[in-house]
Amino acid sequence: MRLAELSERSGVSITTIKYYLREGLLPPGERVSATQAEYDEEHLRRLRLARALVQVGRVPVATARKVLAAVEDESVDQLTRLGTAVSALPHGPAPSGADGAVDAARRTAEEVQRRLGWRPVPGNPAHGMLVSALATLIRLGYPCDVDQLLPYGRAAAAIAGHEIALIEEFGAPTTQLEAAVALTVLYEPVLLSLRRLAQAEEATRRFGTQT
Amino acid sequence: MRLAELSERSGVSITTIKYYLREGLLPPGERVSATQAEYDEEHLRRLRLARALVQVGRVPVATARKVLAAVEDESVDQLTRLGTAVSALPHGPAPSGADGAVDAARRTAEEVQRRLGWRPVPGNPAHGMLVSALATLIRLGYPCDVDQLLPYGRAAAAIAGHEIALIEEFGAPTTQLEAAVALTVLYEPVLLSLRRLAQAEEATRRFGTQT
Repeated sequence: MRLAELSERSGVSITTIKYYLREGLLPPGERVSATQAEYDEEHLRRLRLARALVQVGRVPVATARKVLAAVEDESVDQLTRLGTAVSALPHGPAPSGADGAVDAARRTAEEVQRRLGWRPVPGNPAHGMLVSALATLIRLGYPCDVDQLLPYGRAAAAIAGHEIALIEEFGAPTTQLEAAVALTVLYEPVLLSLRRLAQAEEATRRFGTQT
Repeated sequence: MRLAELSERSGVSITTIKYYLREGLLPPGERVSATQAEYDEEHLRRLRLARALVQVGRVPVATARKVLAAVEDESVDQLTRLGTAVSALPHGPAPSGADGAVDAARRTAEEVQRRLGWRPVPGNPAHGMLVSALATLIRLGYPCDVDQLLPYGRAAAAIAGHEIALIEEFGAPTTQLEAAVALTVLYEPVLLSLRRLAQAEEATRRFGTQT
């Protein structure tokens, strides 16, 4: 397909596609004349993923390039590719501070994962993100013990089981990986908005006037 | 307590506390001399909430002021105060675009809430946030039908039930509201990091070599 069709099918403007091509987020099309190139379904899929990362995930372009490179790296096994790609996503500030809150948060983060039957991997950036969030709760004096965290962990496990099944419906390994990375990013606002809606519903039931 | 103790007990620096006082995020302490003021437990709680909003929620100071004013507004009932405070939190860009994706996203967002037994409230900013996220999924050609969304909604409902119970443990109505707003913001990175850890665990189980 030509650039115009690629733009139409992806919903991404020609200007943005040209920018992604220049920045190496999208491999060049096959030249068919001095001024025209031909793009295929792989370009379309990769463009959608790049768009998801940059627009929804607010991933900087240089970071998106690393994520995409990890997805495409056929020299390593699929689990490593997925791990590298997801680790390259932004995870917020690393845990910091020497006030004891970080140590307490680390212990809680590891304990909650063990209680859920998961193996804690302190090198995983998502582990660092959890430790940071728990350290803030501890510092501000809000509840943050293992029993309070377990319901979040169980909800996350239920979601992850569903997500892996969804991703397996995508055919080829690279397509599965692309979908895994895109859905990790694109479903974050879905989950956060549903949580706020569920809270509003629950609060209305408990505190609201019955209608 | 004096400013130094307020700083120590909250983990917020004196410079930041003075900034919050100037910006009206924190009411002035009671003057005890020309250079000293006295602060109480209410200042401490309110300071923690302001810190949670600004530092973790990345809520602009002007927005945080509105959220805090809603929490304190004793002229309306508790549910209205909670709704106003949470609605004032950032919710990302409103749904936009005239390509049909927003209409399809609106139908899906309402249907998923009805299937979960919730009453859709299109004026709730969290509803707009869900519609935006779904419109992006639709535009990029990723799966986004009601059946795929239900597991996220059920997970959110389980979390919300737990959260309301947690909040009820806080005593007075204003304290409950402060906790509700703080926990809404502070548990977002907890939930997102646990989801990524659950995905890593699930992916390792399905695709990884057994150890």
